[in-house]
Amino acid sequence: MPSISKKGQLMPQSPIRKLVPFAEKAYKQGKTVYHLNIGQPDIKTPQVALDAVKIHSLDILAYTRSEGSEQYRQKIAKYYANNDIHVNHDDIIVTTGGSEALLFAFGSIMDVDDEIIIPEPFYANYNGFSTASGVKVVPVISKIENNFALPPIEEFEKLITPKTKGILICNPGNPTGYLYSKEEIKKLADIVKKHDLFLIADEVYREFAYDGATHYSILQEESLNDYAIVIDSVSKRYSMCGARIGCLVSKNKQVIQTALKFAQARLSPPTLAQIASEAALETPQSYFDDVIEEYVDRRNTLISELNKVEGLKVANPKGAFYCIAELPVKNSDAFAQWLLEDFDVNGETIMVAPAAGFYSTPGVGLNQIRIAYVLNKESLIKAVNILKEALKVYKD
Amino acid sequence: MPSISKKGQLMPQSPIRKLVPFAEKAYKQGKTVYHLNIGQPDIKTPQVALDAVKIHSLDILAYTRSEGSEQYRQKIAKYYANNDIHVNHDDIIVTTGGSEALLFAFGSIMDVDDEIIIPEPFYANYNGFSTASGVKVVPVISKIENNFALPPIEEFEKLITPKTKGILICNPGNPTGYLYSKEEIKKLADIVKKHDLFLIADEVYREFAYDGATHYSILQEESLNDYAIVIDSVSKRYSMCGARIGCLVSKNKQVIQTALKFAQARLSPPTLAQIASEAALETPQSYFDDVIEEYVDRRNTLISELNKVEGLKVANPKGAFYCIAELPVKNSDAFAQWLLEDFDVNGETIMVAPAAGFYSTPGVGLNQIRIAYVLNKESLIKAVNILKEALKVYKD
Ligand SMILES: Cc1ncc(COP(=O)(O)O)c(C=O)c1O
Ligand SMILES: Cc1ncc(COP(=O)(O)O)c(C=O)c1O
Repeated sequence: MPSISKKGQLMPQSPIRKLVPFAEKAYKQGKTVYHLNIGQPDIKTPQVALDAVKIHSLDILAYTRSEGSEQYRQKIAKYYANNDIHVNHDDIIVTTGGSEALLFAFGSIMDVDDEIIIPEPFYANYNGFSTASGVKVVPVISKIENNFALPPIEEFEKLITPKTKGILICNPGNPTGYLYSKEEIKKLADIVKKHDLFLIADEVYREFAYDGATHYSILQEESLNDYAIVIDSVSKRYSMCGARIGCLVSKNKQVIQTALKFAQARLSPPTLAQIASEAALETPQSYFDDVIEEYVDRRNTLISELNKVEGLKVANPKGAFYCIAELPVKNSDAFAQWLLEDFDVNGETIMVAPAAGFYSTPGVGLNQIRIAYVLNKESLIKAVNILKEALKVYKD
Repeated sequence: MPSISKKGQLMPQSPIRKLVPFAEKAYKQGKTVYHLNIGQPDIKTPQVALDAVKIHSLDILAYTRSEGSEQYRQKIAKYYANNDIHVNHDDIIVTTGGSEALLFAFGSIMDVDDEIIIPEPFYANYNGFSTASGVKVVPVISKIENNFALPPIEEFEKLITPKTKGILICNPGNPTGYLYSKEEIKKLADIVKKHDLFLIADEVYREFAYDGATHYSILQEESLNDYAIVIDSVSKRYSMCGARIGCLVSKNKQVIQTALKFAQARLSPPTLAQIASEAALETPQSYFDDVIEEYVDRRNTLISELNKVEGLKVANPKGAFYCIAELPVKNSDAFAQWLLEDFDVNGETIMVAPAAGFYSTPGVGLNQIRIAYVLNKESLIKAVNILKEALKVYKD
């Protein structure tokens, strides 16, 4: 039998996926499982987006341009302008989710064995895209004690080698919920300019900034025009993860021309989803106000409940809809499995994401979990109560 | 300014894309352009598929499973069974077009500098996916004189090195229109088993087999269970290229498990398009009968008209909707550009795809073009007439 590739062997499994068989076991046992493990919001997709595909009048579902339809890109540029980000439609390539934008960005700036510095913990699939691209992730540790703020610039500089091609941040952060300040972005700007690196910012959670804080995009930092690559997506913004529409944005023409060649090879982003995503841009502000209010409410509830749990430490998220909690356990992987297999409170248990998958440094984050607050408040309260009871009896 | 990757520099431009500025010039001059250059059929998408997304009742457009919804995969397995191909739903991973299936297949079986043997001329984007994966395409030339039949097995064996991981065929072929016989598939089966290679077959044109010939899938060759990887797509079958749904099919569990890790990293194939594609499986046989009749009619017209053109040589396509024509010109790239810029018959001209982009051997195919017969008969007749008149006056 021919053998699969080394790369294929090295591709990581999603940290959540590993638990799926145990969740299925829990269902079979008749347990109710509260899912704190996923990034799939329970928020409704704006009606205007859902309706757009119901009233289409296509009779041939054809390819669009590889970079996305011009009309849609024009409207995205307008959306950015409303967010104080000034780009042209031809600085934008529409992609199949933020996921594909990441893949194009990696391919456009890095060759095999090149390095990219990423503050960890980070979105687990950065590991997957790096492995697929043959690229090495060089992590710089951010700490729960500092609320996962940007590590000191010296920590980055220590890690820069001739192989380093860029720094990747996620802002606001999955899994940390941390929102970088303008000052932090400016520090990053200095370092990438000094060392001639790209700065990739995954800004798919842009709208999810709380407590009056405003998101500062790397595209607002004019001196970064040659350096900045933004990854964006409609998935979370409009709760339309299944559309699979995102984009790559850069004022660096070479980056766009190169990413376009990757885009051409795969022909076109999805047409129906572009129709829905274009319509989604008409979503009224009240939708976002409601959603943000809902998430803030959930976050407040979640964090205050978590703070009542003995021995648990949690950072206070200012954005996105995740937080990292440190537990009084040795191995949260085993704990997460045990929660599904061997524990319940009146037939109910929880599924959490062990945090080790969000780190690339081995052995770090073993006592942490990621909690997504994509459930309503009542469920969150019940879920944290289950966690509390579980920690009382769990022994590792 | 930081520099882009070597890989990005090497990524080929689509052979058609290069001509787009000249086509735009022709439009500006007020010319009518017959597009013989594209693989976007003018055939209507089955109504059942278009309707499915109009009547959906989703209120959250959510991710599906990374491997595609189970229900859809079950139905794909049934479609295959109807085509005498016996696979299970878990031998199938739903992908974002056949394009992504190719990317997953390349990633799952090859590392940087590995080699894949492909009969040329071949689908131009195989070059793009190879470059993106850092893999080397080793072409084996098939000849217009032989109607682009499978090159002799000895030609393949000469090219096998320790780096060779697989053979990739396209059946029926884009751009050749060649349909491999059962005997040819059996020859390929022998060689991949003997040398322990994967056999990837891009069968996205499966239904487009003419003159009573039946398509023989590599999945029908049981001895290939460990070796065969099929690339499939709804794009051409249902004229729904913009859906972006395809799949990767293999009975080799390791291949599926590995491809699944690539699929998990990008989360999910498009949800709306899966709804449309699942519905498309209900397309009545009469739709295909009509479509095949239409294509056969077009092919017959096209080939007989082409055969009247002095100095032109054309292979007789038995499948798909392309053919390669050899012209009495030195450089079809320059000729194609000239057709758009400097030529017309009563204000009408044609856009063709220069064939060099379908070869990876430099200097081969320079006097060939690919013609797609995705236009109605009347347009095809006019288009060939324009070609005939053009060749009378063109000097290179
Ligand atoms: C930080 C981050 N980036 C990118 C993505 C990719 O999302 P999509 O491909 O759906 O746009 C996700 C999804 O969860 C994410 O959390
Ligand atoms: C031979 C072949 N394979 C694969 C594809 C990819 O098509 P898609 O990604 O739309 O399924 C095409 C499209 O033209 C093709 O001609």
